Amino acid sequence: MAAQPLDYTSLFRPDLPPAAAQWSGFPKYNFVGGHNDGSSIPVDGLIAAATSVLKREGRTLATYGLESGAQGYKPLREFVAKKLKADAGITCTADEVLITSGSLQGLDLVNQLLLKPGDTIIGEEMTYGGALTRVRKCGATWIGAPVDGGGIRMDLVAKSLADLKAKGITPKYIYTIPTVQNPTATVMSEARRAELIKLSEAYGVPIFEDECYADLTWSGKRPPAIRAMAGNDRVIHIGSFSKSIAPAIRLGYLVAGWPLMSRILALKTDAGTPAIDQMVLAEFATGQFDTHVVGLRKVLKRKLDVLVEALHAEFGTVAEFEIPEGGIFLWVKLPDSVDTMRLFQAAGKAGVAINPGVEWSSNAAAGKTRLRICFANPTEAQLREGVAKLAEVCHAEFGVPLRSRNTERGR
Amino acid sequence: MAAQPLDYTSLFRPDLPPAAAQWSGFPKYNFVGGHNDGSSIPVDGLIAAATSVLKREGRTLATYGLESGAQGYKPLREFVAKKLKADAGITCTADEVLITSGSLQGLDLVNQLLLKPGDTIIGEEMTYGGALTRVRKCGATWIGAPVDGGGIRMDLVAKSLADLKAKGITPKYIYTIPTVQNPTATVMSEARRAELIKLSEAYGVPIFEDECYADLTWSGKRPPAIRAMAGNDRVIHIGSFSKSIAPAIRLGYLVAGWPLMSRILALKTDAGTPAIDQMVLAEFATGQFDTHVVGLRKVLKRKLDVLVEALHAEFGTVAEFEIPEGGIFLWVKLPDSVDTMRLFQAAGKAGVAINPGVEWSSNAAAGKTRLRICFANPTEAQLREGVAKLAEVCHAEFGVPLRSRNTERGR
Repeated sequence: MAAQPLDYTSLFRPDLPPAAAQWSGFPKYNFVGGHNDGSSIPVDGLIAAATSVLKREGRTLATYGLESGAQGYKPLREFVAKKLKADAGITCTADEVLITSGSLQGLDLVNQLLLKPGDTIIGEEMTYGGALTRVRKCGATWIGAPVDGGGIRMDLVAKSLADLKAKGITPKYIYTIPTVQNPTATVMSEARRAELIKLSEAYGVPIFEDECYADLTWSGKRPPAIRAMAGNDRVIHIGSFSKSIAPAIRLGYLVAGWPLMSRILALKTDAGTPAIDQMVLAEFATGQFDTHVVGLRKVLKRKLDVLVEALHAEFGTVAEFEIPEGGIFLWVKLPDSVDTMRLFQAAGKAGVAINPGVEWSSNAAAGKTRLRICFANPTEAQLREGVAKLAEVCHAEFGVPLRSRNTERGR
Repeated sequence: MAAQPLDYTSLFRPDLPPAAAQWSGFPKYNFVGGHNDGSSIPVDGLIAAATSVLKREGRTLATYGLESGAQGYKPLREFVAKKLKADAGITCTADEVLITSGSLQGLDLVNQLLLKPGDTIIGEEMTYGGALTRVRKCGATWIGAPVDGGGIRMDLVAKSLADLKAKGITPKYIYTIPTVQNPTATVMSEARRAELIKLSEAYGVPIFEDECYADLTWSGKRPPAIRAMAGNDRVIHIGSFSKSIAPAIRLGYLVAGWPLMSRILALKTDAGTPAIDQMVLAEFATGQFDTHVVGLRKVLKRKLDVLVEALHAEFGTVAEFEIPEGGIFLWVKLPDSVDTMRLFQAAGKAGVAINPGVEWSSNAAAGKTRLRICFANPTEAQLREGVAKLAEVCHAEFGVPLRSRNTERGR
C-alpha cells in the first residue's frame, strides 16, 4: 500500500530557481548551445584510446582519483601543461593544473573562492550567459565593460575601477574571455592584455581568464594568454576541451599555483571528475590533439561561411555583424525595432532556436536587438533553411527584413 | 616581465574551508575511503563496451547531454530503472531517474533543494562522514538517532520527531542508509522500514534514502527499498555504481517523480555528467551487471574474512565488532581508554590509514573509541600486515591490546 503523498512546498529552500522544463529533443534548427560538429568527433581515435588506456590502467578505476590524487588524471594534467606552454605561452607544471568537470566547474570554484553576496566583479558587457547567471546567483553585481574589435575596452575598465574605488569597492576579479570572446568573437590584442595586467596591478584586482574557445582561431594563431604574460596567480586561467574535442565529455581545467590551488581544491568536493572521460581524452590528445584541431577549424570555418552567406541572402543589410576570427558563434545586430527576446519566442515556435541578446549581456538594453547564432552543430542545409525561417519569422513579427533572396516581402 | 604577485588574503570569501593537503600517494595500508578491489574491475568488459558504444553513438558526444537531455544518458537511466525494479522493488521510469556525478552530487542536490541555515535533519548517529559534513556546511543541525543490529532505532527517531515538534521544528528530512549502513553495516529490517514510513507520514517529514552499498550483501538478498514500500516521492532515493563497479567512474543516480525532479534538475548546473563514463557503464551493465556483482561479493567477503581473522589474532577480545552482512567496511569498538583520533594520527605515521570514529559520528563522544576499517582495496597480505601494525601502534599509545598472536606485549 502506497504511503500518503507528501507536499514539499513548505520544505523547499526559499530561494530555489524555477523548475526545469522537460526535455523534448533538440529543435530542428538548433542555433544555441556550445554543441559541436558531429562528424568531427574523432570516434576511431577515441576507441583506440579507450582500448589502450583501459588495458594498461583500467584497474586503477578501483580507487578514487585513480592514482593521481584529487587534481585529476596525471597524464591529462601533463598534456594540459604541455599544450598551454606550446599554444598559450603559459609555464606551469601538472601540479598547477586542476582537471574540472567542464570549465563551468572552474567558474563555480573561482566564484566559491572569492564571491559573497554584495560583492562586485567587472566583466565584458556582452558575455557568456552562464558566467553572468552564476555571478548573480552568488549575490554579486556584474559591472559590464563594452567590447570593441580589439576586445574589452581598457579605458572603460579603468573608469569602472576608478569609480568603484571612489566608493570604497574592490571588485573581486576582472573576468574576461580574451581569445574568441563569447559572444562577440573578438580577440583581445596583446597590447590590451598588457594594459589589463597594469590595471590589475594598480587596483589589486585579480584577472579571471576564461579561454574555452582559444583553440579555434581560423589561423591557428593567437596572442599569449594573459596568464602567460603575468607569469603568476594574478591571473587565474581556465580552459576547456568542450569546444576542441566534445562538449559531452565535460572536461576543463584550471591553472593556479599551489597556495591558490590548495584553497580551490578544498572546494572541489565531488571526489573527482569521472575517470574514463579523463583517461580516454589524455590518451587521445597526447599526440593527436593538434591534427584534430586543424581539421575541426576547417569544418567550422566552412559552416561560418555558409551561415554568413545565408544571412546576407535572407537578411541583407538588416543583419549587422563582424566576421569572427574563430569559434562557433556569430553575434548579430538587428534594427532597433526588433526585440530579440520576442524573436526568440516566435522563432522557437517555428523550430529555430537562437540566443536572445539580453541573456548574453550584463546590460539588458544593449542586448535587446542582438542575437547569438551558434553554427557548429547544424548541417549546412540546416543553417540555410533555419536562417530563411528566422528571416520569415522576423518579418512577420517586426516587418524586417523587407527583402529576402531578392524577393520583396512587403510591409 | 612577470606581474607583481597578488595577495589574495583579503579577497577570499570569509568562510572558506581549510586549504587542501598536497597529494603524496596512498598510504601503504590504506584502510580508508570507498576504494574497491582492483582485480575485480571488469577491464575487458569495459573495453568491449567502450568500443561498441562509441562506434554506434560516438558522434553524439558533439552535443551537451548526448541526445538524452539533462537527466543523463538514456540507456543508463533505463538500466537503472530496470535494476531498481528487479533488486529493490522500486517502480520507476527512466524519466524519473537522474544520473549524478557520484551519489555525492545526489546528496548536494537534495541539500540544495531543502536546506537553509538553521534547519534540522534527523539521521543515523553513526553515519557517513561526507553526509555529515555536507549537512553542517549548509548550516543545518544533524540530530543523530542510534543504530542497533536492525538499523536505526525507531523509538529514538519517534522521540526526536516528537521533541522537535514540541519546539515547533519540522526536520527537513530523515536521512538513512538502510541497506549496509555506513559505518555499522547493519541492514534495516522490513518492519522498521514500514515504521519509518509511518513516522514520516505522522510528522510530514520526507525520507532521504541512500543505498550506495545495497548491491553488496553477501547473500545477494535485501529488503525492499523504502522508496519501493512508500511508492512515491515521500522517499527520495539515491544510489551509486561506485561500490558495485568502480568509484573513479563517479556515477550515481537519484529517483524522483517529475514535480520534484524538475526542481532538482534546475539545481544541476554542470551541463551534464561526463558522457563516456555513462555510455561505457550503460553498455557494460546492461547484461553483465549481475554476473559482475556476484563475483565481486565473493572477493569482498573473502577479504572481510581475512580482516576479521587478523583482528582476532592481533587484537583478541579488545576489538569488538559485528560481522557485516555485506559492504566494504568494518566498524570496530576499542576499549574506553583508546581515543581513535590519537590512534589515527599515530597509525598514519606508521603507514596505516584508518577512519577515526568521531568523523563518522554525529555525536563525538560516541565515536571516540570507534574506528572504521575499509577492506575492499588492500590485498590480503596488506590487511594482515596493516592490522598487525595497527595493534602495535595501539599498544604503544594506549597499552592495549596486551596480547597479539598469543604473545604478551607487556604494559
